[in-house]
Amino acid sequence: MLTRAEIEEAQARATAALAEAGIVLTQAEQREIEVADFGLSQLDETGLEVVVYVNTARVCAKELVLFPGQTCPEHLHPPFDGTPGKEETFRCRRGRVYLYTDGEPTAAPACRPSRADLGAYTVWHEIVLEPGDQHTITPGTRHWFQAGPDGAIVSEFSTESRDELDVFTDPEIGRATVVADA
Amino acid sequence: MLTRAEIEEAQARATAALAEAGIVLTQAEQREIEVADFGLSQLDETGLEVVVYVNTARVCAKELVLFPGQTCPEHLHPPFDGTPGKEETFRCRRGRVYLYTDGEPTAAPACRPSRADLGAYTVWHEIVLEPGDQHTITPGTRHWFQAGPDGAIVSEFSTESRDELDVFTDPEIGRATVVADA
Repeated sequence: MLTRAEIEEAQARATAALAEAGIVLTQAEQREIEVADFGLSQLDETGLEVVVYVNTARVCAKELVLFPGQTCPEHLHPPFDGTPGKEETFRCRRGRVYLYTDGEPTAAPACRPSRADLGAYTVWHEIVLEPGDQHTITPGTRHWFQAGPDGAIVSEFSTESRDELDVFTDPEIGRATVVADA
Repeated sequence: MLTRAEIEEAQARATAALAEAGIVLTQAEQREIEVADFGLSQLDETGLEVVVYVNTARVCAKELVLFPGQTCPEHLHPPFDGTPGKEETFRCRRGRVYLYTDGEPTAAPACRPSRADLGAYTVWHEIVLEPGDQHTITPGTRHWFQAGPDGAIVSEFSTESRDELDVFTDPEIGRATVVADA
């Protein structure tokens, strides 16, 4: 749960980070930046700021902003409507992002999210993305990611997003942000 | 037809334009920038510089660089393999791009490509895109675009690209760039 003021502050931070990277948004896009706290009410630890450029039945493109050390929690994209589910490519534009997926666990991973001790993170194959680096996540692949100490901007190129279908490992997570009464 | 030197010069110009816009490419990506002269051997007039980030059976993302006044000639994306054909969204990042599509012809269009008098351009509904503006082209929609006087950078988010299937209005055009012998 986030207050309207917290959402607007996060939108302003995300807009500033994008502007610093030379990414131009319209005024309407700035007001519509999605601020996701995944229901945990600890945005700086577990959260994501999202600009959706386009999301049709066939194509989706987003800009993801992560504050320093912020984590997008572990999830996968299931099949729907006869499709295999969302395929997405993450391309790092600014900062550094640590991406974790199914695969051989990394011996000494760089990140340890706050809720890892609760079993909320189960895949530990680490991929480090710096500006110009990218990685494609196939449907059904469990993944999560965390920004480095300077935050990160990541372009996402994908098939249709149906965020409400995302399957999170942490049972406490709700994908939709609940806005607290003022 | 372009010489290897002309291709490398265009790649360097495109890389510089992207860098100026804050867009980071790997060294490998810089070397692989596609320089398309559409078979007309007049790259500064009719041409396009393309970075392909990803192109799978489901998703494609590219960065398009247009030099000042450069035109990507009129074409459409036909159905293939049981799909409706390529759906693409153009998002302007830098400069200005004049996009022309099927639809009500604009009374006084800003652009007049060099080969317009030969019947190579038939759609004249003008859409002006500046940084932060975008437009989605549905499959089968005839379109072409030209950069303003400062050139343009355009992000393209689409379904699978099968450039070799593109249908051009101008019968002189060949989509693949032929490299001249040194």
